[in-house]
Amino acid sequence: MKQFNIGLFGFGNVGRGLYDVLVQTNQQHATIKRVCVRNINKDRGVDKALFTDNADDIFNDPDINMIVELIDDATASLSIVTRALKAHKPVVTGNKHMLAHHLEDLVALQRETGTPLLYDASACGSIPVIRNLEEYYDNDLLVSVKGILNGTSNFILSKIFNENMSYPDALKLAQDLGFAEANPTSDIEGLDSLYKLVIITVHAFGRYVKPQDIFVYGISTMNEADIRFAHEKERRIKLIGHVEKLEDNRLVMCVMPQLLSRDKYIYSVEDEFNGVVIKGKYYGKQFMFGRGAGGYPTGSAVLSDIMACSYDYSYEYKKLSAPQVPEYSTDVPFRIYVRYNTSADLALFNFLSISENYTSDTTNYVVGTIKLSELVRIKPQLHGRNLFIAAYPRD
Amino acid sequence: MKQFNIGLFGFGNVGRGLYDVLVQTNQQHATIKRVCVRNINKDRGVDKALFTDNADDIFNDPDINMIVELIDDATASLSIVTRALKAHKPVVTGNKHMLAHHLEDLVALQRETGTPLLYDASACGSIPVIRNLEEYYDNDLLVSVKGILNGTSNFILSKIFNENMSYPDALKLAQDLGFAEANPTSDIEGLDSLYKLVIITVHAFGRYVKPQDIFVYGISTMNEADIRFAHEKERRIKLIGHVEKLEDNRLVMCVMPQLLSRDKYIYSVEDEFNGVVIKGKYYGKQFMFGRGAGGYPTGSAVLSDIMACSYDYSYEYKKLSAPQVPEYSTDVPFRIYVRYNTSADLALFNFLSISENYTSDTTNYVVGTIKLSELVRIKPQLHGRNLFIAAYPRD
Repeated sequence: MKQFNIGLFGFGNVGRGLYDVLVQTNQQHATIKRVCVRNINKDRGVDKALFTDNADDIFNDPDINMIVELIDDATASLSIVTRALKAHKPVVTGNKHMLAHHLEDLVALQRETGTPLLYDASACGSIPVIRNLEEYYDNDLLVSVKGILNGTSNFILSKIFNENMSYPDALKLAQDLGFAEANPTSDIEGLDSLYKLVIITVHAFGRYVKPQDIFVYGISTMNEADIRFAHEKERRIKLIGHVEKLEDNRLVMCVMPQLLSRDKYIYSVEDEFNGVVIKGKYYGKQFMFGRGAGGYPTGSAVLSDIMACSYDYSYEYKKLSAPQVPEYSTDVPFRIYVRYNTSADLALFNFLSISENYTSDTTNYVVGTIKLSELVRIKPQLHGRNLFIAAYPRD
Repeated sequence: MKQFNIGLFGFGNVGRGLYDVLVQTNQQHATIKRVCVRNINKDRGVDKALFTDNADDIFNDPDINMIVELIDDATASLSIVTRALKAHKPVVTGNKHMLAHHLEDLVALQRETGTPLLYDASACGSIPVIRNLEEYYDNDLLVSVKGILNGTSNFILSKIFNENMSYPDALKLAQDLGFAEANPTSDIEGLDSLYKLVIITVHAFGRYVKPQDIFVYGISTMNEADIRFAHEKERRIKLIGHVEKLEDNRLVMCVMPQLLSRDKYIYSVEDEFNGVVIKGKYYGKQFMFGRGAGGYPTGSAVLSDIMACSYDYSYEYKKLSAPQVPEYSTDVPFRIYVRYNTSADLALFNFLSISENYTSDTTNYVVGTIKLSELVRIKPQLHGRNLFIAAYPRD
């Protein structure tokens, strides 16, 4: 078993979590030798000699034989990861934003340099989703992966739905508890879930799809009327990432709020937890559930990646070179709920059919079927409008 | 990727499930070349040329480069698996009875022959518990593994608890649906769960404990009074396998019915499903849930093992050689419920303390604390008595 001297980038919530877990469990095989941070003067209650603000101090140290990258800047993350791979130092990263945009290049670079990049911690925190999709669900029985992939937005939705908390109060609580970033846009607007879905899809079905080609819609515009609608229909609204292989080998993907009925496994996934349902042709549904946010759970997931490196584990990306990789398609009907204010907003939606239509002096909604391609088309126009969209499957 | 020509032993529920899954998914890399069965004349609706009753027809066929063993005879299973390893043919088995008794020898034989033996399908059907414990939860953060490990007994308990079905009716239904064996003793008496727990413990904590040293108690004596008691306390009775590492590095293990409160994840695991809760020091609880019985789900799990073999995967058993493997101990207090008939039966139990005591003209019970070592001691005397034992944690 290898001995790893780690050069760590970033000492935020997760970096600190990893540091604490390593110290408290007295790990013999992995030690953090140096930490590169932006602000070297900030007091972190840890020996200042550990910190540097110069990446060269890490890359030029011949003792350091592993890079762990836990910063929130995607551009800097890419440059660190690339530099590490080129220097033949194994890398562990948690940066889903960076991965979702550059995974193809990084797969190629791993093959070229023969150096592993691990990132199980990037999707669903402590739940080993990527490694299971890569290793265990590696045959073509897999049908779909669907889940609550973002702990922050789920925490907020739980507080709003179950404790009647206001949106700002729920967000503030999430931030106070260390689940939400100072800028929670990525969590709330579904981007964080989208990035995870892109990564999951590579390992589940061997197809890389650019984030910008996928429909994503968040929860920031959800209001009282939407919550009332959900309660009336005995459903809960959850922010869901979803990828499914259809019978004709087409791949459907989206991230959007969904009105979930009580019989769904993920209906009961509350607070900062993540839950993923993996569906297969002969084994039915598998459900995995665990903490998806927070420094310690995510730090533990990073530790699992470090340990995997120490045993020479690397993702093989077998499915990327499988004979029949499914094609991404948006030519699929979706049943959705749209709450809107003006008829101009409603006119954006080119419905195939409408099954419910409600107007009043305070709120209006329709339930109808629309092609996913239409949602992708109007995606750039949805921002800033007083409306809310949720998938509303018949079940 | 390797091409596997499989020699299959056994064509029962799981063997047939594997055959169907392979045919229906048109697997290119794995084909069943020959099947060894006891009764070659039985009509199985499959070309008779596929079958033989002579193991030599499989072992002497130079084309066959993988053995899959899915029979229910533990002695024959051991001889097949041993012979295959010695012939340097990778083996996949689902026989937990055999594994639980011979795992130490089989680990040694794998190392000696450099040939892999995979058996993820042996524990929890389609849930990849073993591989996750081996690969992902491979650091010393792991605290406990606890779960419903047997689909048949859980199916029966669900029908009794939720649909007021009688025990014989529930058992017959389980058999008709293909979950229960013709002889369900192993499922009902907790032995099947016990064998799985032994295997899980090797991969979770690196300690092999003989099945006969572990306390096991099943559900065959549960009656109306026990169900009433559970309902009164707002709990459900589930058959639970449990292994936990205590702070002082001692390992506690048992299989017994447990009175579970509503807030437990496994409280809601019903029917033939299995559910496993993996608890860690920093990541809290992870819950995995899926089908634990049935030919197709288990056949799919066997297929995952076959695929893993084709990529040269083998269990490394890292934890067996870890520096501080925890010691098995039964010197631990347990709070239990005992429903009994005669005071002679009650006198078997050497309670440390008793917190509830109920007697009536129809039924009697006590709730008290007893050492696990006492339960192990009296285990041989419990069989055939009109009593029922369940763990009853305070929560």
